[in-house]
This record gives sequence, structure tokens and C-alpha cells, in this order.
Amino acid sequence: MKLTHFIGSVSIVLFASHAAAKVHIVNQGLSEKEVLGAQNGWCSALVNISAIHKDKGVKHARKLAKEVIDAAYGYQMGAVLFKPTLTVVPQTFRPTSDGALSYFVGGDKKYPNDKGFALMGWTKCEVDNDSVFIAGNSASTIGKVHFTAPDGSVTSVDKSWVFVKDDAGDIRIVLHHSSLEYKG
Amino acid sequence: MKLTHFIGSVSIVLFASHAAAKVHIVNQGLSEKEVLGAQNGWCSALVNISAIHKDKGVKHARKLAKEVIDAAYGYQMGAVLFKPTLTVVPQTFRPTSDGALSYFVGGDKKYPNDKGFALMGWTKCEVDNDSVFIAGNSASTIGKVHFTAPDGSVTSVDKSWVFVKDDAGDIRIVLHHSSLEYKG
Amino acid sequence: MKLTHFIGSVSIVLFASHAAAKVHIVNQGLSEKEVLGAQNGWCSALVNISAIHKDKGVKHARKLAKEVIDAAYGYQMGAVLFKPTLTVVPQTFRPTSDGALSYFVGGDKKYPNDKGFALMGWTKCEVDNDSVFIAGNSASTIGKVHFTAPDGSVTSVDKSWVFVKDDAGDIRIVLHHSSLEYKG
Amino acid sequence: MKLTHFIGSVSIVLFASHAAAKVHIVNQGLSEKEVLGAQNGWCSALVNISAIHKDKGVKHARKLAKEVIDAAYGYQMGAVLFKPTLTVVPQTFRPTSDGALSYFVGGDKKYPNDKGFALMGWTKCEVDNDSVFIAGNSASTIGKVHFTAPDGSVTSVDKSWVFVKDDAGDIRIVLHHSSLEYKG
Repeated sequence: MKLTHFIGSVSIVLFASHAAAKVHIVNQGLSEKEVLGAQNGWCSALVNISAIHKDKGVKHARKLAKEVIDAAYGYQMGAVLFKPTLTVVPQTFRPTSDGALSYFVGGDKKYPNDKGFALMGWTKCEVDNDSVFIAGNSASTIGKVHFTAPDGSVTSVDKSWVFVKDDAGDIRIVLHHSSLEYKG
Repeated sequence: MKLTHFIGSVSIVLFASHAAAKVHIVNQGLSEKEVLGAQNGWCSALVNISAIHKDKGVKHARKLAKEVIDAAYGYQMGAVLFKPTLTVVPQTFRPTSDGALSYFVGGDKKYPNDKGFALMGWTKCEVDNDSVFIAGNSASTIGKVHFTAPDGSVTSVDKSWVFVKDDAGDIRIVLHHSSLEYKG
Repeated sequence: MKLTHFIGSVSIVLFASHAAAKVHIVNQGLSEKEVLGAQNGWCSALVNISAIHKDKGVKHARKLAKEVIDAAYGYQMGAVLFKPTLTVVPQTFRPTSDGALSYFVGGDKKYPNDKGFALMGWTKCEVDNDSVFIAGNSASTIGKVHFTAPDGSVTSVDKSWVFVKDDAGDIRIVLHHSSLEYKG
Repeated sequence: MKLTHFIGSVSIVLFASHAAAKVHIVNQGLSEKEVLGAQNGWCSALVNISAIHKDKGVKHARKLAKEVIDAAYGYQMGAVLFKPTLTVVPQTFRPTSDGALSYFVGGDKKYPNDKGFALMGWTKCEVDNDSVFIAGNSASTIGKVHFTAPDGSVTSVDKSWVFVKDDAGDIRIVLHHSSLEYKG
């Protein structure tokens, strides 16, 4: 039985004569809309990096990628649980931001196998969620993400994200696990 | 800088050809609307108990009060942090549900000073929030609550609540601190 | 600057003459130890199912697998974000418990490609975390899990988990993403 | 049934040959120990302000009080749900930090009734919890706090706190409700 069950014939007006506008609200929770917006933002950022790479070269792509990582991931919280799609042992995971940057734009001798995932000319990126679990101050998603290449072909990956909201109210990725589909 | 900053000219449609309706959503977070609804529900329940007491007597009032406490407080989680307005040492706090029931409807020899706050004939109960802080899976509120007595007089108390959402998705009070106004 | 900075020469004894034992504690948070225990429990359960399958047959293995899923995953919360290692399109994700059961022990016509991952005779299962992020009421992990087959060969997978604690205080898996290593 | 139930005869060693020391840990949860430490820190800070006021005057007391408020409360998150013991209508609540500072050390024309609670010469401050509820990323406490005055007399108040951990890992008060005991 819910508490709201008791709201019945004896109607109670909330905030009646009191100015609701003056109530101070701090909301550190994550709404479904915010989660979907963050996923959309990640896809947009990837396509933007690919576009800038094509138009202005790798230097500008690297600069934008760094801005995206600083804005979108939670590296300043201590570590990010990041397993990109195409990394190999022994550098499968990228707990530091330089490892993330290398994955997206390559060019870092410390990560010799990284070719730059964001430099592959993606023209479209589409989020296709299977399930979303909002735990309150964190939210998890799982599903497919579909990437369209310059030749129009589509690559689908399985992707999990965990998001949290930081003190400034911005959403940050704290877990990102991406993998190619198993083909049986 | 927010992640959504990157949603720009390269527009990305989320869930485009994929049926959003099929996405499984579990949301254990607390929205502002749910918090205000729970506060409203508490006030309604109090007025309802007073009305039933007047119409049908204390037995029915006690039965309803027990239902309200079971539905609205988190006693089944282990303990509730409850400091009612009119309790005295050494029974100031009511960490168990029988202590809460006694406060609202009296009649329990273990709590000899309880007269039954919900039996005082309240005809109106109004929530007047100063501030709300939503931490995600819990939410705190502070403000005045104004109670109208049968003679039309209004008593205002200072009241804090902390709410959580249980596994069934129902909102429960885990902290409730109420106190008479300090008059200087 | 931390609040505890102010604990200095003017020493204050907490709970001095007051019996700390009487304080009511409800703790819905997840400790690092609890997270590691849950991971260990998952590995143990998998090896146990393999052992029972070998000793007593698939019927007993199925019964145990069902118990494990009911105890370890959060299906009763609405859905689990589960991408097992060896599932294929269009049944990549298993948001319902029957999909999880089929993955572990097979034998369900609705999931024709499932062969039963827990029936493969695993003799050892080892968790090898890269990073752990505890958000309070939820905790995320990412890393390798190493499975030893009957012939002694080891298969390593990349695995992410998100855990929450339910109202009863038990830890449950709400996200589980497992994938074979990318080989370049 | 708990997941750890399955850890049985088939013993699994976690982190066996893999160096646990290399695991990246981010913990934004609140432990019981951290909560008690924060309460203790608040009491210590109050006694320290009283001591500095006596030794060096109100100017130094004000400076320390400001440092304490900035370190201990969550005003930078947007608002704090603060109902001090001795405030009166219409300034009962102190959602902004200048209102908190005025309460503790007085001397602000905007708050004419504030005399400076921390200037009253408190020589001892003792936390006496009734109940603690840890929701994960937030924690609530309720109980008595006992203040010893210069003449040795003790004043007991009923006090609730809600704490959260900020991005830097420091604990902050987001709700503080204090009230004189009801005497019947």
C-alpha cells in the first residue's frame, strides 16, 4: 500500500498559501531523460570528432576528444571503469584519461595498438537501449550502439554505461564496457 | 562543460527506428514530485485518522493509524529515526513501530506520556517546505507543517523528513524530526 | 578541508558514557568487502553448478542454477541488464530470469542457441578486477574473469558488474556484461 | 538466500595470483565510521570556536566559524536544510551560509535575533545517537547532543543530521535539525 493511498476525500492542498517558488531545491538524482541525453551526447561527440578529423585534421580532433573526455567521463573522481571495443591485452582497460584519449585518437606510444576509434569517419551513431536501471544517484544502461561508416556500412556493438551526477550537476560516465557482437 | 554540449549540428536521433517502448526501465530514484506526494500523503493520513476517530471512535482510528505507519514508514528496514513533536525523555525517539503507533493514538502502557497526537481533531494539515535535497535514492525535506485544530487555531511545527524508495517502488519515511517552534 | 580537521587538542569522546551498543544501525550501503564477496560468490556458484552437473546430471544443475539466479540477480526488481558472453542476436540481452536460466543450463526452446555455459565443466573461476567504483547504494566493477576448463585450459573474459543491496540487505546483480577478449 | 551462500566446499581464491594492490578503487559511499567521525568533528569544531572566542575574541571566532561552515556544510551544493536550535520565525531556517554563520557567531544585522550560539563558552560537546540510517551515498542520524556550559551545566538538544560525501571525498552536512527538548 502506498502512502499516497491516503490522499482521498479529505483533500489537502500542498503549498497552498505559501509560495512554492521560494522553496530551495537541490537535486542530485538522475532522471531517465538525463540518462538518455547523456547517451545521445556521447554519440554526438563521437560523430563530431570524426567530422572535425575529416575537415581539420588529427590535431583538432585530438583537442576536441580531450574536451569530450574531460566533460563526459569521471576520471577526476579517481578512475573510470572503461573497456573500449577494440583494446587488447595487456591494455584492455583504460582507468586513466590518457588511455581513453589514446583509444579515441591514437598517436600515443604508450598504447601502440590504438589506431583511433573516433578517427574512423563515423557519420552516424545511434543508441538502441535494451534496459535502463536508475539506482538514484547512479544509472546503468545496456544495449546496442550502431555506428555508420563512411561507406554506409553499420557496425553494432554491445555497450554498457554507468552514469553518476557530479557535485556541479553534470552527468559523468564511470563505467563503459563495449564489445563486438559474439557471432556463435 | 556538459556532455550534452556536444549535441549540435550533427543531429543524432535517439531510438530512431528502434522501438523505445520495448526498453526495460527500472527506476529506484526519487523525483521531486514523488517527494511532495509523500508529504501530502502524510498530511492526508493524519487528517483522515482524526476524522475517523471523531466519526467511529478510537478503535477504528488505531486500525487506520497502524495501516498508515506500516505503509508510510520504513520500520521493516530495521529502524526509523523518529522524533515526534510531543515526546519526552526517556522516550524521545521512537525507533520501533509500536512507539510510533502509541504516539499517534496513545493507549499503550509502555508509553505512559502519549496522549495520541492524531486524535486531537486536526481538520487541516499543510506542508510548507523551506528546502528539499534529493540525493538520488534518498530525499530530505525541511520546513513548517501547519495543523488546524477543531477551533480553527493553527499550530506550526518545524519538520524534517528523509524518504527512501523501497524495492517495491513505494516511498518510505526513514527519518522524521518534528519540534515546536522556539519562541526566543 | 575535512570536517575531521577540527578534531584536535580539545578532544571529544564520542559515545563516552552512553552505550553505543544501544544505537540502532541500518546500513544499506555497499562496502568493498561486500562487493568482493559477491563476486567470489558468483564464481563459486558457477563452479558448483558445473560440479553438480557432472555428479548428478542436468536436472540437479538446473535446480541449483535457478536458486543461484533467484539469489544473486535482481530480476524481482523489474529487469536485469545482462549481456552474457556467448549470446547472439536477436537474443543478446537477457532482461528476464528465464533468459538467464537458459543461458546457464540450456534446454529452453525459446532460446535455441543456448548450450548451457554452466554445464561446461568449469573447475575454477577467478575474479581479477581492474577497477571498482562504489557509488554508495550501488557498486560497479570491471576486470577479467578467468575460467579453467576440465582440460586445464583457461578462458579469460572481460566482465562488468553492477551490484545493489536489496531491502533485505542482500547484494544483487543488476548489470552483468561479459565479452570475449578482442584479439586485434 | 545470499549469494555468498554458494561459497562452499569448492573454494575460490579471489585475486589469487593477481595483484590486488593494482586494483583502482573509488568509494563514494559513507561508512558508519565516517559518519561518527563527522559528528565528532562537528562537536570538536563548536568547542574550538568557543575556546578561540574566549582566548582571542570574536574576530578570530568568526574566522574559524566561517572555515568550519565552508568545510562541514554543503552550501556549495545549492542549499542546506538547516534548522538551528534557537532561531525564530521568520528566520527559522538557514538555507544560505551567511545565515549559518550569523547563527554561530552573531553580529549580522540581517539576522537581528542571533546572539551567537558558538560564543556561549561551551567546554564539552557530546554526541549520543539513538539511530543511524546509511542509505549508501547519504547517511542520516538522530539522537541527543549534550553541551556543557562554562558553569558545568548541561543542555541536551534533539538533533538530526543528513550527511553526503562530495566529489572530493569529504563528508558534508546537507540537513541539520536541532530542537530543545519538549518538557510536556
